[in-house]
Amino acid sequence: MQTKAYAAHASSSPLAPFSLDRREPGADDVAIDILYCGVCHSDLHAARGEWPGMRFPMVPGHEIVGRVTAVGDEVTAFKPGDIVGVGCMVDSCGECPSCEEGDEQYCEGEHGFIQTYNGAMKGGGENTFGGYSGSIVVKDSFVLKIRHKEADLAAVAPLLCAGITTYSPLRHWGIMPGEKVGIVGIGGLGHMGIKLAHAMGAHVVAFTTSPSKREAALALGADEVVVSRDPAEMAAHAGTFDFILNTVAASHNLDAFTALLKRDGTMTLVGVPSEPHPSPNVANLIFSRRAIAGSLIGGIRETQEMLDFCADHGIVADIEMISMQDIDAAFDRMLKSDVKYRFVIDMETLKQAA
Amino acid sequence: MQTKAYAAHASSSPLAPFSLDRREPGADDVAIDILYCGVCHSDLHAARGEWPGMRFPMVPGHEIVGRVTAVGDEVTAFKPGDIVGVGCMVDSCGECPSCEEGDEQYCEGEHGFIQTYNGAMKGGGENTFGGYSGSIVVKDSFVLKIRHKEADLAAVAPLLCAGITTYSPLRHWGIMPGEKVGIVGIGGLGHMGIKLAHAMGAHVVAFTTSPSKREAALALGADEVVVSRDPAEMAAHAGTFDFILNTVAASHNLDAFTALLKRDGTMTLVGVPSEPHPSPNVANLIFSRRAIAGSLIGGIRETQEMLDFCADHGIVADIEMISMQDIDAAFDRMLKSDVKYRFVIDMETLKQAA
Repeated sequence: MQTKAYAAHASSSPLAPFSLDRREPGADDVAIDILYCGVCHSDLHAARGEWPGMRFPMVPGHEIVGRVTAVGDEVTAFKPGDIVGVGCMVDSCGECPSCEEGDEQYCEGEHGFIQTYNGAMKGGGENTFGGYSGSIVVKDSFVLKIRHKEADLAAVAPLLCAGITTYSPLRHWGIMPGEKVGIVGIGGLGHMGIKLAHAMGAHVVAFTTSPSKREAALALGADEVVVSRDPAEMAAHAGTFDFILNTVAASHNLDAFTALLKRDGTMTLVGVPSEPHPSPNVANLIFSRRAIAGSLIGGIRETQEMLDFCADHGIVADIEMISMQDIDAAFDRMLKSDVKYRFVIDMETLKQAA
Repeated sequence: MQTKAYAAHASSSPLAPFSLDRREPGADDVAIDILYCGVCHSDLHAARGEWPGMRFPMVPGHEIVGRVTAVGDEVTAFKPGDIVGVGCMVDSCGECPSCEEGDEQYCEGEHGFIQTYNGAMKGGGENTFGGYSGSIVVKDSFVLKIRHKEADLAAVAPLLCAGITTYSPLRHWGIMPGEKVGIVGIGGLGHMGIKLAHAMGAHVVAFTTSPSKREAALALGADEVVVSRDPAEMAAHAGTFDFILNTVAASHNLDAFTALLKRDGTMTLVGVPSEPHPSPNVANLIFSRRAIAGSLIGGIRETQEMLDFCADHGIVADIEMISMQDIDAAFDRMLKSDVKYRFVIDMETLKQAA
């Protein structure tokens, strides 16, 4: 099944039209026409070869919303016409403790989970190609149901990565109504963190380095906004947070935030900095039994739970729609944080590609 | 009540005989003749002025075992003749959430908890004097009951700091029988961590930089010993630990240990390094939802629980008894890790002091 796509042919070249073959759907496969694909920061770093292990040509995209066109004989959960999502994973070993407990993102199998793009399909070195394409074929157990209304579907796409990356730690660390939750950074991830924590009933404090983002953060659902460069504003919150979700990947001073945690509070990082953060102050941890943790996307079951939670609460991402042809300009704008808060590609525009 | 003691009169001078006044016991006070006092690394750092906020003259010592000589009118839990212990705390605000929940070590009151030495008594700047002395007067709610047999009392003293510092995190992170627990460092703290984790039924792996400590660690109760400088030995344990208790205060590479944690595993630090550890690898945390945490001694209720647990399991520290007069030589040997595993001062020897 030939499909149009956009690919990075090398780390140094802009994305360009590409054609690829999708496999014929097997017994447990779902074939999907892609309607929208969100543009994650990972796409940019991967396409520009800033991480090790990148393979070209590369078709990025792991925030996929589409319509089912065909299903294999053994597929019972989906039928043609269904609106579905695909996130960062398309397969995993299925047998390790993490997979058995529904945490496929931590798959302990030989290859780990299979990434939606730049992943090695099981049983071969074949590369996987992601959502910057007209269609995709995915094993049914890695396909998500989407219950949002049709008009919202473009803005649902970023939930598949930015949504689950922030939802999973908020759930894992057991955020309860009334708890005080900090969200550090107001970008693609952070703006979802604010919306989700607010919907969970938390008292949400958004941290930003930019006073200009104050109004926007309040509009997203933050109860308070703190400019993290203002020591007095920070000090006023010392020792008061139950949990802080830190979405900032750039190297920064973690101590300023761990000092704001209550006894037994945790700050969870979801971004890997290219330069290490300054080494965290151990006394800050010891003297209030605080923790610094990390979290990676979420499992398939939890991703479905997140999508249902968002449908129930009317939550979608704030997006700016782009054409497939504008992807490199969008990458450049992302590097300047010039997007509120996620670009989503309208895949209809791919049909016009050369 | 005059009592003999040994004090550091300045950070640059060795400890020397000193005489101090203990208050007359108030209604809720317990007066104690000190029998034994353990020698903690903190004593050394404090007496030599290596930390900020040290006040001289200083009488160190917060691993105290003694016999009750008198009690105030309102004291019901203790009577003259009882064998009791005093640890790192002699008071706290009693009103903050941490105190109310029995975690006085995280007291959020204005002054924090009152340290047994170098602490400011509530209501005044008066310095507290610790266990390198003939007697002490302590509020009843900070006095611990000791049920060990008389012959073990010297070896019980280190439980009041080294014991609770390792017991509390093992309990807080819920170590269960059969879980795989790492203990990093085999010193005063680490040797207690091995004994306690073993008694809790864990599969205990001791980490040391010294192959020569292998037999000793096995004798303490470790099921396995790993030389942490051997990459192959370390790699064989990747991703297998439920919990790691890291007792090493010297700056070292934490990543080598976080990589050994299972998904959702925590490594808890109980030592504050004088130079920061190399900044921990964030990807190591994110890709298995691991955490790095800190923990400080334990609350009074938990310290009593620890002492009872140790009495029930016949656990004491491995000690070398010294005379009060030999304290500076002992400090010097501690700096060379030349002690298995804790010095304890026989306070009878204080009576011979000038």
